[in-house]
Amino acid sequence: MLKVRIRGLAIDQTNTPVVILETEKSDKGFGIWIGRFEAESLAIAVSGKEFPRPLTYDLLLNCLTSLGATIEKAIIHSIEDDVYHASLYLTKENGETITIDARPSDCLVLAVKSSFPIYVEEEVFEQSAIDLQKLGEDYPEHTTKKGNNEEFKQFIENIQVEDFKRYLRRKDDDSDEDKT
Amino acid sequence: MLKVRIRGLAIDQTNTPVVILETEKSDKGFGIWIGRFEAESLAIAVSGKEFPRPLTYDLLLNCLTSLGATIEKAIIHSIEDDVYHASLYLTKENGETITIDARPSDCLVLAVKSSFPIYVEEEVFEQSAIDLQKLGEDYPEHTTKKGNNEEFKQFIENIQVEDFKRYLRRKDDDSDEDKT
Repeated sequence: MLKVRIRGLAIDQTNTPVVILETEKSDKGFGIWIGRFEAESLAIAVSGKEFPRPLTYDLLLNCLTSLGATIEKAIIHSIEDDVYHASLYLTKENGETITIDARPSDCLVLAVKSSFPIYVEEEVFEQSAIDLQKLGEDYPEHTTKKGNNEEFKQFIENIQVEDFKRYLRRKDDDSDEDKT
Repeated sequence: MLKVRIRGLAIDQTNTPVVILETEKSDKGFGIWIGRFEAESLAIAVSGKEFPRPLTYDLLLNCLTSLGATIEKAIIHSIEDDVYHASLYLTKENGETITIDARPSDCLVLAVKSSFPIYVEEEVFEQSAIDLQKLGEDYPEHTTKKGNNEEFKQFIENIQVEDFKRYLRRKDDDSDEDKT
């Protein structure tokens, strides 16, 4: 398994948010297409902004805390029909570990809020990953709607989750990248 | 306490969703302004539509089930700064009851999915409730953007959560109605 972290958030040409995950020890990474709400929740979580009332993910975490459970980790373990599948690993009050089927997007928001690690199975990573360093050079046709390669490269390097912009990272010639 | 149920969903003039709650034993009810995501989740839950992957609220409920906890009820107990506050009542595996601070919108989605009752404290209800039967007659200026009283009355009577329409139920002369 490989530990991954969030490199950034983008929005593709169809206005669908993409979260870009990268390994800590290489320049390789991959994108997961997620829902708009989950993307907004992720951006809010990363920004650290607090709200007077508990949002849905806060409610989930508050329920777990009140029940004496903690989330140990999440693992993105497989791809089925172009959709990434993950599991949350919870430790119960009595020390027992249980796994819960989950979408990667939910795992990522919870991980940012609750500081647990996210892993991806190597097989899944190998199937999806590209060299993020080469993005601006290798995929000139997949840069931005109105920008250029350099702009996209800078976007990937200095991505700001607060200001969603319309960027494209899809590789038309590699459907492995096109996961939702 | 009064048991309430969802009468329907509407969208006000500012495009903010409103969930209309009514008591089971009277024609009185009130509206709670909620977030767009929570409104969509509520509409999906009411429709009974199922998705191949667990949505965020499914994940929350799956976590509770896996931890042996059940939601007994939710109570909308107060209004602070024009915002309704609620509590979820959970029963732990060992029979202990715990309460979790929650937004009414989250409680409502979970209630539809998990079939637990929603109550409102009488004081809160009295402060907010109006006679839903009189809507079309008493509030002619607060009907629809492009419709008429009869249309709004029919909307309230036969509300369909699937097709959100731009209706208004706000009473400008009664700020008690204007809760978010």
